[in-house]
Formats: sequence, structure tokens, C-alpha cells
Amino acid sequence: MSKNIVIIGGSAAGPKAAARARRLDQKAIITLIQKEEHLSMASCGYPYYIGGTFDARSALLSTLDGALRDPDYFINVKNINAIINTEATVINKENRTVSYKNLITNETGSINYDELIIATGATPKKPPIDGLDLEGVTHLHSMADTDYLRKLCERMMVEKAVVIGGGLIGMEVCEALIESEVEEVTIVEFLPQILPFLDWDLAKLVENHCVTKAVKIITSRSASRFIGNNGELTGIELDDGTIIDCELAVVAVGVQPNIKLAETAGLEIGKFGGIKVNQYMQTSDEHIYAVGDCIETKSVITGQQVLAPMGDLANLEGRVAGENAILGNKKTFPGVLQTGICKIFEYTAGSTGLSETTAKKLGFDCISSVTSGADKPHFMSAARLISRITADRKTGRILGFQCVGMGDVSRQLATAAMALAGQLTIDTAANLDLPYAPPFSPAIDHFIAATHVLQNKMNGLLTGISAIEVKKKIDSDETPFLLDVRENGEYNQNHIGIGETTIPIGELKKRLNELPEDKDKEIICFCHFSLRGYEASLTIRNNGWKNVNVMEGGISAWPYAMKKQ
Amino acid sequence: MSKNIVIIGGSAAGPKAAARARRLDQKAIITLIQKEEHLSMASCGYPYYIGGTFDARSALLSTLDGALRDPDYFINVKNINAIINTEATVINKENRTVSYKNLITNETGSINYDELIIATGATPKKPPIDGLDLEGVTHLHSMADTDYLRKLCERMMVEKAVVIGGGLIGMEVCEALIESEVEEVTIVEFLPQILPFLDWDLAKLVENHCVTKAVKIITSRSASRFIGNNGELTGIELDDGTIIDCELAVVAVGVQPNIKLAETAGLEIGKFGGIKVNQYMQTSDEHIYAVGDCIETKSVITGQQVLAPMGDLANLEGRVAGENAILGNKKTFPGVLQTGICKIFEYTAGSTGLSETTAKKLGFDCISSVTSGADKPHFMSAARLISRITADRKTGRILGFQCVGMGDVSRQLATAAMALAGQLTIDTAANLDLPYAPPFSPAIDHFIAATHVLQNKMNGLLTGISAIEVKKKIDSDETPFLLDVRENGEYNQNHIGIGETTIPIGELKKRLNELPEDKDKEIICFCHFSLRGYEASLTIRNNGWKNVNVMEGGISAWPYAMKKQ
Repeated sequence: MSKNIVIIGGSAAGPKAAARARRLDQKAIITLIQKEEHLSMASCGYPYYIGGTFDARSALLSTLDGALRDPDYFINVKNINAIINTEATVINKENRTVSYKNLITNETGSINYDELIIATGATPKKPPIDGLDLEGVTHLHSMADTDYLRKLCERMMVEKAVVIGGGLIGMEVCEALIESEVEEVTIVEFLPQILPFLDWDLAKLVENHCVTKAVKIITSRSASRFIGNNGELTGIELDDGTIIDCELAVVAVGVQPNIKLAETAGLEIGKFGGIKVNQYMQTSDEHIYAVGDCIETKSVITGQQVLAPMGDLANLEGRVAGENAILGNKKTFPGVLQTGICKIFEYTAGSTGLSETTAKKLGFDCISSVTSGADKPHFMSAARLISRITADRKTGRILGFQCVGMGDVSRQLATAAMALAGQLTIDTAANLDLPYAPPFSPAIDHFIAATHVLQNKMNGLLTGISAIEVKKKIDSDETPFLLDVRENGEYNQNHIGIGETTIPIGELKKRLNELPEDKDKEIICFCHFSLRGYEASLTIRNNGWKNVNVMEGGISAWPYAMKKQ
Repeated sequence: MSKNIVIIGGSAAGPKAAARARRLDQKAIITLIQKEEHLSMASCGYPYYIGGTFDARSALLSTLDGALRDPDYFINVKNINAIINTEATVINKENRTVSYKNLITNETGSINYDELIIATGATPKKPPIDGLDLEGVTHLHSMADTDYLRKLCERMMVEKAVVIGGGLIGMEVCEALIESEVEEVTIVEFLPQILPFLDWDLAKLVENHCVTKAVKIITSRSASRFIGNNGELTGIELDDGTIIDCELAVVAVGVQPNIKLAETAGLEIGKFGGIKVNQYMQTSDEHIYAVGDCIETKSVITGQQVLAPMGDLANLEGRVAGENAILGNKKTFPGVLQTGICKIFEYTAGSTGLSETTAKKLGFDCISSVTSGADKPHFMSAARLISRITADRKTGRILGFQCVGMGDVSRQLATAAMALAGQLTIDTAANLDLPYAPPFSPAIDHFIAATHVLQNKMNGLLTGISAIEVKKKIDSDETPFLLDVRENGEYNQNHIGIGETTIPIGELKKRLNELPEDKDKEIICFCHFSLRGYEASLTIRNNGWKNVNVMEGGISAWPYAMKKQ
């Protein structure tokens, strides 16, 4: 007897599960029920179509060979019966049936399954405020949203736009709008920073880059009302009463798993609101699997449940569920590292594992350091990378790595994600044999340099303090002796300007008399990246000063205002 | 009492060891003896200065802040006493002294050490043939070689050049010469392929790219004689009697460790001709460490001794030795993965761990597959990647990964190197949480896709055969039924042209009657990347044919001539 496999959801995880099931069983009857008109939409590509990175809408709906992924394609190429414009309405676990309704014809029906895979995705969260239905207020979630935004942009119909939410999607939308020549984009984020998977200081560096474009960023504020005129958006009022004029608002405050169908069927739901699954992607019913944005998965770092609505994970989960639905529970999905990456103009920002803030919140006894550097040797066209690596203080196991800058952040994050996957410690990672040649990395790769910095800090060789801590000291009227050991020319180009003394590193030994007489006085050394700052700190310590710190990452990682020539 | 640390060698490993020692001990007396005029030369950057990627010679000798790394810099900034133009002549282990001689003044002297670090590097191998001393014959190893080549290129003095050796350095030199408008460069390689760390087929893809430039590649041949006229090079005679006219020949047939000093001192030498060290980088004498290109290290994959003369490893080894010389043996160096990467025009090529050829030679029971794909989604500006992943057949442990193409090979190799460092299996790597967003990778990253392909092959789902095996069959007059399942338009653009039948994948189910009647006949399916070829193979198998293979990597990985429109 042929196995009957039914899959609900046709975006990413569903089609992958269907394709995997088919490859493992050529005789199974495989049916995919899709609520929307389209199948296998490349939804992560929406911002790049809106921003004009490419203009062929069809590319979002086709294979790389140009074949449209419609029901004909699914049946002819994949031998999968895809039913579009059709909503699954009820799952009956006992009879193993799914009822459905065609949203165009209103026809209803029911289908039997031996194994069911739920891939119902997620829906954008809606803030509970007035005016969400005004013309000009949208999300970026569906192909329809994409078409709407692309049309507005093509016709140059937007001068001022607001993006509510500074997460991954919000930042991608912001970039897309600026790329398509919207005159001004304001990001409103209710947290104190954009990109909450980053620690505050690294997020601030991204903000600093954004504001060099026509982008305004307002943090620690939320929208309280959309203001309209004749049904059309004219502005947004914030919770402090500020009004921002705009003709377009894109709401990107996160997504919530679509669990109604599963919940009604009596499947177990996790504490973060996603369908609960085990390592086989199996729900609380043994014949029902669930995958993609509608589920909760597990962090392999903490072992705790997390939501991880990412397109790549949806594919991997779908592949595991498709296999298990056919072969029985053969394959496991280990959980996630919560890796994320985002291009924002010339910057790239991303993270894998835990930020320092999150690690501390979760009770880890962790230690972190910030490292600035270049992604290539200085004689190549090198670009800057600023990162924070966090490790367990006792075992040295790496817990997380985040990286921002104009350099090759992608390779850095891939390296770090693999370090987490391999459960490497700082000591092990310090001697990695990574691909090195001048077009690709400096002799000591940035990630390895970051492990060296943290190793030095853990061994007490480097007493590092972050830019945030330095700023706090200054703001609270502490008066540490701040020492910039760069050359005068570098200082003149740009400097922090909070009362620092400058002594170029090469002159330091001769000019120690310019340091505080009090050998207990706190001295904070830094330079461009703080490698010279580190060397200065060792020399100064060796000459009897007892409280000598290095400002980690140097002025490259200084997230506050700077004085420039 | 201050510790007396002496370091012999001032290029990469030596200065790093010295710097590390200084950071750990501000009171030590640290002396660096350097035979050459320069210190800490960025020798990996030489080809890029010759090729005009940058024009500031000083950048090769300076820090990224522009400080010249001369003896003044070493003493003032690093507190390291660097003695240049000085050769260490004798190591006396018993008295712990090093004798030296100034190569300019001929003054001699001797210095005591508590701990000695040998970082004498390597020397280019010289082929045992006539004419090496002709004007126009050079290596690319020293700053003097670099100056010589740069001058020739700047003055457009070379029309035809030959590079002897198609390894990493040879290929970098070839690129540099073409970039600086040498009219024709011929590479002569005595092995049957360039870049011997790659398997033959992937190396051939790199060759195919090179010959689209003004590059000729002659493999399985060696130079037997340099031909000169009035002391100037005019040509090269090969071992088959061919004469290649040229005014420049760069010999890049590898390097050999500089061990004379160590050997004379009675230190143990390994079987590959490098100084033997333990995991602490300690030689057979407990007060003498050795690091960099002069040593043998260990492969962490095989546990066997290897030579690994790479700039990044020299730095890491130097750091370990510098620390151990000061603190006693605290830090270990785990060995190497033999990761290498090389930019060659628009191509990047690299490898980490073992190639299939090497793994088999070493007796591993291994399994490999070739995967072709793109480094980004097709709607972004994606570029091609072709890779081979090799794993232990029984345990699934990844043994090696090599990758070539115009795409982001660097991230792929970093990912793979980390998979080796973490000793991941194919099954574990199949569910990695890597950084995904369309500007950086497709939803299923290429490396993950490669693990999926090999997983399918290991599970018997995919019966893959390499392009090499297909070609062998054809050449030996086997007549497998070759099936290209791409669309007609794709076929017309380019195809293999060895008698293949074309049936687009979407029509396959209706046109099964065009397949061989004999159900035992071998059928080999393929497409552009062989994803559709894989699906076709499953459909065909399901319809009763028993001997159905997929040509791995599709025509993207076909290294032989193709028919193009």
C-alpha cells in the first residue's frame, strides 16, 4: 500500500518536506495544501526585489533554471499534488483526516493521511493601536505586500516612510526603501537598540552607519497611533506624543507562529507559542510532524525552547520531517544556534549563539571581549570588523559571537557558528587552521584574533574594559587617565575627545613621566584597534602602575560621538 | 633574574614568538637575530605588489598604522632587540649560546640564551638543471625577488614568462604577471595537474578558467634546461624537447625547511626534512623551540607528520612557542588541517583536510561526492561553487573538503575547516545553523548541500558517479545511456556532446519510452548542477530500470571540453 503523506503549508518547510518524502518514496501519495496562490516563494528575497537589487518578480517564484514553481511543476517534476488557494480547516487526529476549503470556489473536502506534516508558518504581529487599516500601512510578509511596496517604490510615491521595528526584517525593509529612493526612512524601535540579538554597543555601531544614509533611528519608543486623512496614512504618533509625517509605514515587530489549526486539533503548544515537537520534528501526536516558523525548537547552547523563524532552518527541519514521515523516526534535528545575519547598506551585522546580555540574563558565568580588526591585510582592500566573543568563564567553551562592520562578516559568522557546533573552547579555537591568503584574510584571522584577546583576558594578561564601561565611568564623574597611544596624525583625523592624553606608543617609554604620579590611579589605554593600547598597558603596568586597563576594540568600537577633523 | 630569550629568524613566526614572549614577560631580555635586512615582511603579499593590487612597497614592511617595522620600531614599541643583516652561525646547546656573524661588517659574536626559538624558515627548491643563474630566472621568495619582478613588470620588460610549478605560489605569480600585462604566461607543472591539494577534476576546472586568460598550462612535464644568450634567459627546454621562448622564468616548485643550523646542533630532524617538535613546539632539546616553515608539524586528521609552510600557521606556532619559552610548557599546538586557499583571476580554489586522492592513498575507507551550486540565491548576483566532500565511510566523519569557483569559496572553506576542527560527521553537518540571508548564501548553504548529497550517497538514495568516471566509461567504449534532463534552451547554450539524449525533467514521465528497452542498461542522468538529474534518476529507477546513476555536479563540474553555442 502506498503511504499517504499530507503537508499543510507550501512556502519553505512544507515543499522541502514534500520533496524529501518523494525522494525517499517514489510510490507515496503526497499532497501539499497551500492557502496562498503561490508555492515555494523565495520570501527572504522580497526586500531585494522591492529595493531593486533585481527586477524580475518571477525570479521569486521560479527555480534557478527559470521553471515556475506552480502546481504543474510540482506534479510533473516532483510528482507532488499541490493544491493552492486552499485552507486546511480541521485536523481530525483520530480519523487521520484534514478538512479543507478552497478560498476561491468555497468548495470543501477532506483528505486522509497516514502521516501529516504541519508547516503553517507565522504571521506578522500587529501592534494593538488604531489605524492599522489605513492605506499606506503594511507588513512585509506576503507576495501581495511585496507587490504593494514595489509598486509604491517604482512610482516614486513615497517621500517619507516609517518602519516600526528595528529587527532583521525592519532593517532589510529600511535598506530596500532607501535603495528605491524613498527620501527619508525613520525606524521606530521600542527597545533601546535596533537588532536585539546584538549587544547594545555593536547595535549602536550599525545605527551610526545607518544615520550616514537618509535614515533616522528612534529607540525606546513605540507607535501609539497611525494618523490618517481620508483613509490614507499621513503620519505616526509615538508614545511620547511626537508625530512623524509619512505616507508609508511598514510594521515589522516580529512574527507569531500560526498554531490555530494545531491547537484546535489538541496538539501540544510550547511556552513561546509555537507547536511543540521532539527531535524527530514530531508533535504530541505520533502521526503529525510540524516544521518551520510555526514550531518551537531548542537552543543547542542552552537546551531551552526557542522560536527560530528562519528560512534556512525551515528547509532543514522540513528535510528531517519529510524523511521521518516516510522511514519512521530515523533522523533527528539537533536544534539551533540562533544564527542571524543582515546586510544594511555597506554594513553587515550578525550573531550566532548568545550575546553577552542574553548569556548573563540566562545565568551563565560568562566572560566577553570586543575585538576590532580588518578582514584582510592592510595592503589589500581591507574593511573593518568589530566583534564580541563570549565564553563560559570556567570551561572556556564559546557561547556566542557577534560581528558588525563593512568587512566579510559572513565568513566570520560561519566560522563562529561552526565553533559553536563543534563545542570548541577558546583555547582550541586559538589555533585554528583557517583558509589564509591575502585576498581573503589577514595572517591571523579576525575570529582567531578574537579568541586570542579573550584568552589574554581570561588569563589576566589583558584587563579589558568595554567602551560602554569607559563611557559610564566618564558620565559618573570618575576621572580615569585616558591614554590614546596612536600617532598624532591619526589622532588629528578623529578622536574620542573626552579628555584623553596622547602619547604615541613609540614614545611611551620616554614619556612615562606624563602619566599620573599616583601609581594607583586608573589608566585606560587605547588606540585604533587597541593592539597598541594593549602593548602600552603592559609597559605601563611593568613600570609600577597597578590599575591599567585597555579599552577593548579601540576607537573603532567606540559607539558614541567622536570628534573628527 | 631576567630570562634571556633568543629568537633566530625575523619574518613571521620569529617576530610573533618574540612579541608573545614580551607580552608575557616585561622583564625578559629578548633578542631577535635576522639574516635579512627587513623584519616582519608581509611575504604573502608579494604577488599582489608585483601584480599592482597595491603600489606602496612600504606597506609590505609596515604595520597597518604605517609604522615601519625596523629595529627602532622593535625596540621602541615592542622592547625587542632586533639585530638585522646577521646570520646565526652555530648553536651550542651545552653552553646555551648562539654564535652569529654580521653579513655586512663580518663582525662575529655570541649571545647566551635561557630559551632559544628557531624560526629559520624555508628556502625555495632549485631544480637540478642548467641555467638557473641566467638573468631572467628567479624565485619569488625574498623582498629582493619581489623588487626584481615588480621592476620588470613596471617597465613592461617581459612579453613571455614561464612559471615552473603550478602550486599555490606558482598560480599567484602567474596571476600577478598577467595582471601586470605580461603578454603570455606558461605554467609548467611536472604533476598531471596544477594545485595538487585538489583532486584532478577540480584542478582541471581551475585550469579551464586560467586558459580563458593569456595563460598556457603544460602538465606532466618538467623543465630540463634554461636556455640563455649572453647570460640572459631566452627560453626553456622541457623534458620532451619542446622549447618555450621566454624572457622570464619564475621557479616555484616548493620550499624546503632551513634546518642546517638545527641539524648541526644535533637537533632531531623529521622524515620530511623539517625540525621535529612536540606539541609545545619544543625540539629534541628542552631549551630550544622551533616554529614556522622550518619545522614539521602534525596533521590532526591523520596524526602523521606533515610540512605546512603557511604564514598563518607560522604566527600561531610562534605564539605558542613564545608563551612556552616564558611560562614553561603551558600551551599546545594541536597540529594542522592543511587548509589552503588561492585567488586565481576570478576563481578561488582551496582545500581543507584530505582530498579524495590523498585519503585513498593513506588507506582511508572513504566516500566522496561532488556538488555544484551557487553561493547565493539565483535572484541575487550569485556565482558558482563546485566542491568535493570526503568522509570516512563507516563513521561518516568528514575528512576533507575542497572547493573551486567564482563564488564565495572563502566562507565555504572556513566552514569546512571548522567542521574538521570540530570532528563533525556528515549527519551532524547536515543540520548546521549557518548565517543565512540572500546577500550571503542560499537558503541551503552550499556546504550543507554538499553534506546532503553525500548523505544521500551513503544511504544509497543517490548513486553518484563523477565526471571522471563517466569520461572513463566513454573512452573505454562502454555505451551507457546518457540523459541530460535540462530544458532545450539550456542544452542549446552548452552541452557535453558525447551522445547524450535530452528529455527535460518535466516531460520525463511521459517520455519514458525513449529510454533503453533493456532495464539493466546503465543510465546516467545529469543536468546543470544534477539536482534535476537526481530527481530524474529516482523516477527512472521507480519505473523499473535497475542501473541508474547520477553524474555528480552536473555539467557545471564537467572538466573536459564542452560544446557551446
